[in-house]
Amino acid sequence: MQKIVIGVMGPGVGSREADKQNAFELGKLIAAQGWVLLSGGRGEGVMDAVNKGAKSAGGLTVGVIPTGDNASTSEAVDISIITSMGSARNNINILSSAVVIACGMGSGTASEIALAIKAKKSVILLNDSQTSKDFFKEIGGNLIHIVQTPAEAIKVCHAILGS
Amino acid sequence: MQKIVIGVMGPGVGSREADKQNAFELGKLIAAQGWVLLSGGRGEGVMDAVNKGAKSAGGLTVGVIPTGDNASTSEAVDISIITSMGSARNNINILSSAVVIACGMGSGTASEIALAIKAKKSVILLNDSQTSKDFFKEIGGNLIHIVQTPAEAIKVCHAILGS
Amino acid sequence: MQKIVIGVMGPGVGSREADKQNAFELGKLIAAQGWVLLSGGRGEGVMDAVNKGAKSAGGLTVGVIPTGDNASTSEAVDISIITSMGSARNNINILSSAVVIACGMGSGTASEIALAIKAKKSVILLNDSQTSKDFFKEIGGNLIHIVQTPAEAIKVCHAILGS
Amino acid sequence: MQKIVIGVMGPGVGSREADKQNAFELGKLIAAQGWVLLSGGRGEGVMDAVNKGAKSAGGLTVGVIPTGDNASTSEAVDISIITSMGSARNNINILSSAVVIACGMGSGTASEIALAIKAKKSVILLNDSQTSKDFFKEIGGNLIHIVQTPAEAIKVCHAILGS
Repeated sequence: MQKIVIGVMGPGVGSREADKQNAFELGKLIAAQGWVLLSGGRGEGVMDAVNKGAKSAGGLTVGVIPTGDNASTSEAVDISIITSMGSARNNINILSSAVVIACGMGSGTASEIALAIKAKKSVILLNDSQTSKDFFKEIGGNLIHIVQTPAEAIKVCHAILGS
Repeated sequence: MQKIVIGVMGPGVGSREADKQNAFELGKLIAAQGWVLLSGGRGEGVMDAVNKGAKSAGGLTVGVIPTGDNASTSEAVDISIITSMGSARNNINILSSAVVIACGMGSGTASEIALAIKAKKSVILLNDSQTSKDFFKEIGGNLIHIVQTPAEAIKVCHAILGS
Repeated sequence: MQKIVIGVMGPGVGSREADKQNAFELGKLIAAQGWVLLSGGRGEGVMDAVNKGAKSAGGLTVGVIPTGDNASTSEAVDISIITSMGSARNNINILSSAVVIACGMGSGTASEIALAIKAKKSVILLNDSQTSKDFFKEIGGNLIHIVQTPAEAIKVCHAILGS
Repeated sequence: MQKIVIGVMGPGVGSREADKQNAFELGKLIAAQGWVLLSGGRGEGVMDAVNKGAKSAGGLTVGVIPTGDNASTSEAVDISIITSMGSARNNINILSSAVVIACGMGSGTASEIALAIKAKKSVILLNDSQTSKDFFKEIGGNLIHIVQTPAEAIKVCHAILGS
């Protein structure tokens, strides 16, 4: 039977410290629910931290890799899906996730939130940019959920999944 | 020698009237500069209008189609690139454009602006949403150019191209 | 630490009975080695059988799905990667696999073998078409391994992986 | 009104001299019919030759580029579609072509023929490998047309297009 996959999207290089801490905690909590973690899979910033968090709690981690090999894949990724299609893989990230959590902000993350809205996926925003919240609420309406902590994000996931 | 390709991104179904009028005018002006118009290619809203504008001025139009056939392609598209990859084709749209003009706003368009920023492409915003301008300025900085009219967009294109 | 992913490619609709039996056995043996099974993920033919075989032995299964949802996904797929990119996803299948096993033959499978050769991946052929073996040997040379049974395919996998 | 796009697929590096000559002639003849040439777009081998042939006759050329920029694009490509998705772009090549002509043989070309068969596109084979003809006839049946010269390929195109 299919496992529940939760996607966590966030910046690689240049991630803020607070976002990386949130990402680690998110990974841990996702694993604790028995969910599979899906991310962009790179060994940097939020992407790396969320995978390490999930592994710290014995979770299963899937990375959807933009490049053609694993040279920059997080060492905490269990299953590496090699796409070699750059940022076009962002659409796979969100389509494969039952719920999308955006942790932090950047151009790649913004594209994933927008693609999720386009695909009518629920998105949970965990970041400090009020501007981003205003914008995604404007284009995403009820699909957008704004939270302050990783624990709150997990609670919203359960509500969305009806679990 | 390679032709100059200008991408115009914007909503299909549900486009606002003002955005469609701007799109038609943009298409006409792009054709008048001798540039090739690239768009998402669907026969609706901004996408349809910009292609019709370009054809009204004798331009050449390329549509990068999300579906697997031409059932929903604008009749004003000359060359149809069939991707069958849904919104993942948005990344092709922006990578193939020397400059990206976003006319109107929606989740697909927002993903294209974000992907353009990720790829370090210049983006010209022509729409009425102050929230979107604030957000993309926040994540895109100097790559983002805000204009009020199609004519101004063309002027900025020339400045970016150094032509 | 990354898990070893073995890809099994083969037809969906119209699969031959012998190929489906081989696929089930391959899935079982792959799971028994502790490897992750990756396939095209559809609930038909070789794709369905190989996933069922892997689950019968308690394995972990990943499906890389061509469509935009799970309507046609095999019920034996644990982790569903939704690409919505049709046959373009075939390249992801082979790039994500440490070794590719082609079980049976068809146009989709042939494209995966060819893409694997292009990416310099080893491919194991398990089918009854001498013509296909002649052709892929001609274009793939030493990357192509020809076997008669699922057990032999697993042996060749071990040799390629150095395990 | 949409232009007729004919795809010519063939190897880049390592192309045979005879295949490059055929490709140049094919490009010339395609342009002479008023058709748009679509190819993989790289500046090597068959891909480069077919674009140069088309330009020698004043044709319009589209290249669907596997990389993220134009560093390796043929100088004879007019419109460059940048995919940054490696060999996954092969599926776009064939979906966007009304007829696919395979000139020469290699793993990339073989994947395109197989993907064309999967998409029920007609494919014209112009090469010296009997093995390849046997194989693609076996999996493609009536979709596969075998020709000896560029002129014959054009004649078959007209028959397929009903023109």
